[in-house]
Amino acid sequence: MSKKEETKKEETKKEETKQEETKKEEKKEETKKQDLVTPYEIKAVSETGIDYDKLVDRFGASMINEEMIEKLTEIATKKGIKLHHWIRRGLYFCHHDLHRIIIDYEQGKPFFLYTGRGPSGQMHLGHLVSFILTKHFQDIFGCAVVVQMTDDEKYLWNRKFTQLQIHKFLMDNIKDIISVGFDPEKTFIFSDYQYIKEMYPNITKVQRAITFSQVKGTFGFTNSNNIGQVAFPAIQIVPCFSSTFPKIFENFPKSKSKKSRGFNCLIPCAIDQAPYFRQAREIAYRIKEKKPSLIYAKFFPALQGHKTKMSSSKQTTAIYLTDKPNQIKNKINKHAFSGGGRTKEEHEKFGADLTVDVPYAYLKVFLEDDELLEEIRVKYGNGTMGTVQVKRTLIETLQKIVKKHQETKAQVTDETVKLFMTPRALKFD
Amino acid sequence: MSKKEETKKEETKKEETKQEETKKEEKKEETKKQDLVTPYEIKAVSETGIDYDKLVDRFGASMINEEMIEKLTEIATKKGIKLHHWIRRGLYFCHHDLHRIIIDYEQGKPFFLYTGRGPSGQMHLGHLVSFILTKHFQDIFGCAVVVQMTDDEKYLWNRKFTQLQIHKFLMDNIKDIISVGFDPEKTFIFSDYQYIKEMYPNITKVQRAITFSQVKGTFGFTNSNNIGQVAFPAIQIVPCFSSTFPKIFENFPKSKSKKSRGFNCLIPCAIDQAPYFRQAREIAYRIKEKKPSLIYAKFFPALQGHKTKMSSSKQTTAIYLTDKPNQIKNKINKHAFSGGGRTKEEHEKFGADLTVDVPYAYLKVFLEDDELLEEIRVKYGNGTMGTVQVKRTLIETLQKIVKKHQETKAQVTDETVKLFMTPRALKFD
Repeated sequence: MSKKEETKKEETKKEETKQEETKKEEKKEETKKQDLVTPYEIKAVSETGIDYDKLVDRFGASMINEEMIEKLTEIATKKGIKLHHWIRRGLYFCHHDLHRIIIDYEQGKPFFLYTGRGPSGQMHLGHLVSFILTKHFQDIFGCAVVVQMTDDEKYLWNRKFTQLQIHKFLMDNIKDIISVGFDPEKTFIFSDYQYIKEMYPNITKVQRAITFSQVKGTFGFTNSNNIGQVAFPAIQIVPCFSSTFPKIFENFPKSKSKKSRGFNCLIPCAIDQAPYFRQAREIAYRIKEKKPSLIYAKFFPALQGHKTKMSSSKQTTAIYLTDKPNQIKNKINKHAFSGGGRTKEEHEKFGADLTVDVPYAYLKVFLEDDELLEEIRVKYGNGTMGTVQVKRTLIETLQKIVKKHQETKAQVTDETVKLFMTPRALKFD
Repeated sequence: MSKKEETKKEETKKEETKQEETKKEEKKEETKKQDLVTPYEIKAVSETGIDYDKLVDRFGASMINEEMIEKLTEIATKKGIKLHHWIRRGLYFCHHDLHRIIIDYEQGKPFFLYTGRGPSGQMHLGHLVSFILTKHFQDIFGCAVVVQMTDDEKYLWNRKFTQLQIHKFLMDNIKDIISVGFDPEKTFIFSDYQYIKEMYPNITKVQRAITFSQVKGTFGFTNSNNIGQVAFPAIQIVPCFSSTFPKIFENFPKSKSKKSRGFNCLIPCAIDQAPYFRQAREIAYRIKEKKPSLIYAKFFPALQGHKTKMSSSKQTTAIYLTDKPNQIKNKINKHAFSGGGRTKEEHEKFGADLTVDVPYAYLKVFLEDDELLEEIRVKYGNGTMGTVQVKRTLIETLQKIVKKHQETKAQVTDETVKLFMTPRALKFD
């Protein structure tokens, strides 16, 4: 190679390096402008909250389309049940391989639902969402449900808690979950501390398949994370593989496939949990397991606005399942971020901005009456209905829901909790 | 500040940065020249093997001194037992807080011994060392022993193994360990897969106290390690805290100290396991546990020489507990690295170099007869005894030991294994 050619080559290389650096910088800038969504932190760039279209793209999920909703409506209707308004109204908005579950159902093949909770305090309304939808699916599909209580996770992430404190939250939260109405013959609720031994073979299998680099990228871990946190994703991943529950699924027909063990799993969850299950889907085939299917919910916003979600550590951001009617009233009147006009005149002229209004967002979730909701959307939106009236409707709606929940929970005994938590063969039909 | 001053300041800063870099470079160089000793890799710089003096310094341990040996001899003698030649001859050469155990013993306070093994294949003679010494201590102190079998570790570190294969090694290895002669009323042997539930509260406690940065430094982990490996140190650490065994130590007197729970633990192990327990000692007080005491052995060298230790993956580097008399003979004759002269003349003139000679090193470990060993040291060292004779003595010694081991192991039934592995209250007296 001549000297000239060499110089040219070097220059080309320099140019390439420069271009690469520019690209990296651009990507960095883009990441900065991007909504932050991990199981540990959620932060929207815009006042209207998370840009879900972009998130669906980033996470490689698919939107729930009309055809899918029709199919689910058909299945629900056959059981004499109206498909949950959360699917109809788009609270559950996207999915990974939901069609696989529908095909399994139509072919009479076994599958199960998996959801869970980290017991770090009292539960609020937002925490109920996945449980209510899971229960709804249990009703329409007649299938088994496993509920993981990640008491270990909460201990690993919260230095202020002792294991005993978390255990108290655990036992209380399980009563809330049971109150949602799960079928005791088809539902297994377990705590990680109690069920670790049965899970451990699969946990180490999953751990062996994931490097620190990977969790660093997917979960945003750094060198300062403790080593329990680093390994934790495996613990939340294993319940999506049916082989984790040999005893629980003892009565379920065995799969004949040689490619992967067991049967499909559908996980209803909020989109912030996606990293766990995207990781699960990435490694599933490598460890001869089936990729889990998922259906994702949008976040249930904090009373203060769409930029973040309800938090169990900030009492005023959420309506708790233990709140008294008066507390609910005061919280909503005082803290619920309104999209209404700043003055009466402004409101009558421009109407409310429904994209940022929290009372309206809550009504979309908790007001079952489709017609009343539509009336509010139109009238509040054009300014002929005021914030006070909308808030009043919300207060009444939530007071009713919370009261009913409290009454049901009061009936849940320690024996019932024990029954749900006993490892046993669930019913298959 | 004047321009001149500024320039001067800048120069000083540059100079400092330069000095720092030089220091870093020097440190790097030093690290390169340093023996590598982690639980995953051992590599000596010199032909004579690991520089143990330097290692003791680096690990902040203390040499076992004459006074300590006298004390131990006194305790052993009272029980009618001769103190093990491994302590007298310096195979076990350094310790952390061994005196605490001696004080506990003299004051009649409870303490226990902890040792273990990762079942990744058949056991060789080197693997027996910690078990034999632990059994010796059980004899002289009359105390309880817990043996951890890290089947999970071996699975996490060896992609070629299934859990079933490791389970087979586990059950076989436990028979080898029982053959050493542990007291069934005072010994609990457990596998991580089987005992994980009982350990898990303490595991998460330890995990919460250790960051990825720390294990990166202590164990040489990188971003490519799998997340199970990253979290594993906690699992090997917890058995050194007596609170991990509430049922096992049920009959032991409770400690009244408020500062830390439970009672002391002594861990006999090879020095490559030190990183685990140095980490344990570092965090013990933070989680209100007692710092474990340790007694460390030098490595048992590979037949090929002192630069590395015996390996279960390389058949010719070690004498296996399953080897037949002929295999032992052939391996030693063929592979045992000799420090003898290259020719008969040279040998008679200069004698053997005992610092690199493997047969002599093995005899120091396995020949109990102090007088015969001394004779070999003198005569082989000055060239009046030849390599052939030394090797013959070694062959006969090892054949006898291995044969006896095989005979004992043949008597260990599955029932005996089950007995040792049953979580139960151990005897305290």
